Amino acid sequence: MLSFENDYSEGAHEAVLQRLMETNRVQQVGYGEDEYCRQAKEKIRAACGDPDADIFFIVGGTQTNMTVIDALLSGVEGVVSATTGHVNVHEAGAIEYTGHKVLTVPEHEGKMDAGELNAFLQGFFADPTHSHMVYPGAVYISHPTEYGTLYSKAELTALSRVCRERGIPLFLDGARLGYGLMSRETDVTLGDIAALCDVFYIGGTKVGALCGEAVVFPRHGAPDRFITHVKQHGAMVAKGRLLGVQFDALFTDNLYFDISRHAIDMAEKLKQGFAARGYRFFLDSPTNQQFIILPNAEMRRLESRVRFSYWGPCGEDSSVVRFATSWATTEENIDRLMAILDEATQR
Amino acid sequence: MLSFENDYSEGAHEAVLQRLMETNRVQQVGYGEDEYCRQAKEKIRAACGDPDADIFFIVGGTQTNMTVIDALLSGVEGVVSATTGHVNVHEAGAIEYTGHKVLTVPEHEGKMDAGELNAFLQGFFADPTHSHMVYPGAVYISHPTEYGTLYSKAELTALSRVCRERGIPLFLDGARLGYGLMSRETDVTLGDIAALCDVFYIGGTKVGALCGEAVVFPRHGAPDRFITHVKQHGAMVAKGRLLGVQFDALFTDNLYFDISRHAIDMAEKLKQGFAARGYRFFLDSPTNQQFIILPNAEMRRLESRVRFSYWGPCGEDSSVVRFATSWATTEENIDRLMAILDEATQR
Amino acid sequence: MLSFENDYSEGAHEAVLQRLMETNRVQQVGYGEDEYCRQAKEKIRAACGDPDADIFFIVGGTQTNMTVIDALLSGVEGVVSATTGHVNVHEAGAIEYTGHKVLTVPEHEGKMDAGELNAFLQGFFADPTHSHMVYPGAVYISHPTEYGTLYSKAELTALSRVCRERGIPLFLDGARLGYGLMSRETDVTLGDIAALCDVFYIGGTKVGALCGEAVVFPRHGAPDRFITHVKQHGAMVAKGRLLGVQFDALFTDNLYFDISRHAIDMAEKLKQGFAARGYRFFLDSPTNQQFIILPNAEMRRLESRVRFSYWGPCGEDSSVVRFATSWATTEENIDRLMAILDEATQR
Amino acid sequence: MLSFENDYSEGAHEAVLQRLMETNRVQQVGYGEDEYCRQAKEKIRAACGDPDADIFFIVGGTQTNMTVIDALLSGVEGVVSATTGHVNVHEAGAIEYTGHKVLTVPEHEGKMDAGELNAFLQGFFADPTHSHMVYPGAVYISHPTEYGTLYSKAELTALSRVCRERGIPLFLDGARLGYGLMSRETDVTLGDIAALCDVFYIGGTKVGALCGEAVVFPRHGAPDRFITHVKQHGAMVAKGRLLGVQFDALFTDNLYFDISRHAIDMAEKLKQGFAARGYRFFLDSPTNQQFIILPNAEMRRLESRVRFSYWGPCGEDSSVVRFATSWATTEENIDRLMAILDEATQR
Repeated sequence: MLSFENDYSEGAHEAVLQRLMETNRVQQVGYGEDEYCRQAKEKIRAACGDPDADIFFIVGGTQTNMTVIDALLSGVEGVVSATTGHVNVHEAGAIEYTGHKVLTVPEHEGKMDAGELNAFLQGFFADPTHSHMVYPGAVYISHPTEYGTLYSKAELTALSRVCRERGIPLFLDGARLGYGLMSRETDVTLGDIAALCDVFYIGGTKVGALCGEAVVFPRHGAPDRFITHVKQHGAMVAKGRLLGVQFDALFTDNLYFDISRHAIDMAEKLKQGFAARGYRFFLDSPTNQQFIILPNAEMRRLESRVRFSYWGPCGEDSSVVRFATSWATTEENIDRLMAILDEATQR
Repeated sequence: MLSFENDYSEGAHEAVLQRLMETNRVQQVGYGEDEYCRQAKEKIRAACGDPDADIFFIVGGTQTNMTVIDALLSGVEGVVSATTGHVNVHEAGAIEYTGHKVLTVPEHEGKMDAGELNAFLQGFFADPTHSHMVYPGAVYISHPTEYGTLYSKAELTALSRVCRERGIPLFLDGARLGYGLMSRETDVTLGDIAALCDVFYIGGTKVGALCGEAVVFPRHGAPDRFITHVKQHGAMVAKGRLLGVQFDALFTDNLYFDISRHAIDMAEKLKQGFAARGYRFFLDSPTNQQFIILPNAEMRRLESRVRFSYWGPCGEDSSVVRFATSWATTEENIDRLMAILDEATQR
Repeated sequence: MLSFENDYSEGAHEAVLQRLMETNRVQQVGYGEDEYCRQAKEKIRAACGDPDADIFFIVGGTQTNMTVIDALLSGVEGVVSATTGHVNVHEAGAIEYTGHKVLTVPEHEGKMDAGELNAFLQGFFADPTHSHMVYPGAVYISHPTEYGTLYSKAELTALSRVCRERGIPLFLDGARLGYGLMSRETDVTLGDIAALCDVFYIGGTKVGALCGEAVVFPRHGAPDRFITHVKQHGAMVAKGRLLGVQFDALFTDNLYFDISRHAIDMAEKLKQGFAARGYRFFLDSPTNQQFIILPNAEMRRLESRVRFSYWGPCGEDSSVVRFATSWATTEENIDRLMAILDEATQR
Repeated sequence: MLSFENDYSEGAHEAVLQRLMETNRVQQVGYGEDEYCRQAKEKIRAACGDPDADIFFIVGGTQTNMTVIDALLSGVEGVVSATTGHVNVHEAGAIEYTGHKVLTVPEHEGKMDAGELNAFLQGFFADPTHSHMVYPGAVYISHPTEYGTLYSKAELTALSRVCRERGIPLFLDGARLGYGLMSRETDVTLGDIAALCDVFYIGGTKVGALCGEAVVFPRHGAPDRFITHVKQHGAMVAKGRLLGVQFDALFTDNLYFDISRHAIDMAEKLKQGFAARGYRFFLDSPTNQQFIILPNAEMRRLESRVRFSYWGPCGEDSSVVRFATSWATTEENIDRLMAILDEATQR
């Protein structure tokens, strides 16, 4: 069945698979010390414009979030997140599992506001009882957010400034970073992110790889003994080459950016298709996740012909659903979706 | 450089890669609910002779150990391991990180003795202060062990009996299970393991896969909400298909067992080559890891021409080193190694 | 300086100290197995009307909350609390430290609403992604709340019903339980609490003891090996007698209830004094904590003559402050406070 | 029944109780910020000869160990202890519960050897795989040990030197510190301990107080935000005065040392009594815990008339048992014990 359920429904981009085939029998050392990891790191450093960046490859997103956040925080610190942050909702308590509280600030279409963050931090340190409370020790944002929205360069700069004034590291979850960087409506570059954040990751799983996220600590900023933290959290793979080869392929000949742009092109086509048919959007997303409001009866009719994600109720009779494109989405499938919509409407 | 450093120096068996290519663009749902995972589980159930086994795929070994052990134990329980157990030494404290103590019993060439385990458990419950101590809540063994040795069926049965008398689950770490099952000197089958253990895993990373371990809870024995434990420990991959496709390939047409047997054949050839040249062995290993005693001067000469693992000192002037074969080892490489040994000796 | 800062500014009721003196040299076994603990438990069981209650004595409140909640929950579960719950704010992340998330529902003058709790639980289990989320595994309420307010018997019954329908234990934090039970406006008895809750504690530290909280699991409901949980959390004292003797004294001749009623009488006198002088209250508290709104200038004048707690800003120019009475508050001190208020106003 | 079971069978020294009575109604602030804590800290600083020592009062020993060790360690570090260390055996896994491994070195009558510690640390850092292992981040010793034995000044100096060469803090558990300092066979003073250790605690629970341990970080060495660690571990009491008053009394007019010397005098009398009657000792303890070897038949006869602790079997027919004296032991009770021994022997 046709699927727009998420951006991880297929395997990997063929160039990635090709590179895995070519390198398959070359013997390499384990645990990320191999030649492919080395090459991939160099290419990512170049793409970030930071020759001093410390880079690590980790298999998945939740694993990355819990390992990075736990390594950043001291025992009495927690991480500040918007209420809708992935770490606060959909990671089964992985952060708390590492012993740290997720401290929440309000969300605005999935984003955190620098002024509200500043007020939260000021309020905390002004509270005479704060030594009985969890100290804010890191700030977590996602870009694109869980709602597909993006920070502007001005917004990201403001968040970075608030964090630096307090000496609190800013961590950007880039599970879908390629789709954010290639959005038609962004003014934020990979170099900006490296300059403004203290740690971020470049998502591979949702952008062309079989698995893998590249964690970047700009300016030699990795926590002490980070590799042991990675091992302790079960986040180290014996065949580190699996991640190195993939990121090497993704950062060769602009592949990561080209396939991300393709996903954006497909999202725009999908968006226009829905809009042209009079559908309402839950919010205006400039990336590969599109949130549509569907009457429940229509939602149920569509479900039998195409897969998408249920997001939540919208009033009494409607629901918010998500259609996601990706590097793998074909124009043909968008056309098939539109045909299904037309047929569903006629009925 | 020629390498016998470990059993994860290459990528994956070509049949596994081939299957990844073939299925690459088929859309599937995420998080292990896909068709390939379903098929792979059926094949593993058949191989285990247990149609009721609960099966989960996890990326790596440390991750599997910490997730399974933590899910098995209550808050006041620890896991019993031989002192040389991987969970006690080389996982950077991952078990303690989940809040549980590793309780140790002596090791005998890497193995735990059922009588000593029984004495430990009796001693614990007989101690009038035991409510102030960590309760033994699970038993961890590896097969093959960290020293390449194997439990006999009688030994495994005795361990299983001690555990069942106490109602304590027995967990077998099978990171190299294929090499154990295909050893020329074993009387233990996969069906025996499923019958005698309460949970075990079938290692993929070291036996032909890019990554992945198959966790088996025989007789519908999975802990309640195990999937949420997996997510919480960061051990769930979005593209669960990556693991399903690989295990599906490995358990098709006996591939897992055939490539394991090949590694054993190569290990026997390597073993005979060393023996014929008068080298001493640290212990007699019937599997793919061979532990050789080398004079330090010779070890240093060899290091420049072939990679192997340093295991520890052996007296004043010698060391124990490990040579590992795998599914990927070629006869040609064994011959090259022997030629290197001959040249090194002549010098 | 005169203090209404909290309800733990003095030592212990003299009858408690007297009993410590009398029993001081009698040799007893350690860790709560002594004769005084045994007697105290019997008296508490009688007061609760539950001869089958399991009872444990723990030194302090945060310690009690973290030990009880952690023992109640499985690894993937969290505790539901109102946003203002002590466990969510003022315990320095002690619950998260034990690996569990605090899941929040709205507060209403410090209280949780049974309908909102039910909606939260329904929403959780209806969410198709809930296996990627923290399961609600216990419900935490305080009575009196952090705002001095009380649940009615109907409200408590409704919460209990919601919990029992879901098989989720209800935990009542009774750090100030005596002051709740002796309020002039309550219809809830100790027996009601034992009947409606699955675990609660009777606060000693704030109600006449030097230290100590009595944890009650009605109907033999203590978690398995709870004593080992207590030890593991560092919550077991060698001289358990210290807690046993105190609770024995408090539950002899109605002392706990009598001194609690005295605190309420003092609170009513204080409340009338403030009201008669035209002060506004932040909310109407029927217990020993009274929340007054003070213009900031007046607050600063008062601070030099009497101690009270700052609670937070109230508009631009005023603040909410707390005045607490206790078993130790004298009428004379209330009169002195009123005189200070009068003088401050005249200036 | 007469008891030599432990050193916490009675309440508190009468001078301590007296001081609690005298100060009972004086209003003080909470959480250890009171006047009595301040005075007690000054007196302890003077006794340690370190005017810059950071001092904190915590209720019990396990709580102190877990809070201090967890605050000292980073996430990937563990604590080194002799195998018999209290933290390794009798704290129900409290250290592991905080996420840290207890790394063990051999014990010699309960003591750690500086040479073996050094070899352990050297071996760790020399191991090429150590980044996959738990880093040693602190060293834990007890003085007196769990076997009543003491480090000499030379031994303690050697341990301190090994730790300082590696930059690893040395933590001394002084649950029975008074009895060590007043031993007739020690050359270690409180000032030596403050000079040689990075943190230690002065036990109150077993030396004259109802409860309480004084944690000392010499030379302003407390970890950042230690008070929040204390709160998070549930180790902070609202009525901090309870601990301040007691330590103030204990460190007034040499009380702590005088009552400790009394316990030693009683231990010597007990020891001579056993020796004179031909009993064998398990080891030669210079402090208040004496370990006697009893034939099992005699042990059972004695059990009906006097309480002592069972320590473990000693060959087929005998057992090791412990008789403890304390500040509260009377000469009369020693005489009664000897009379019981004589009667038991005659039968």
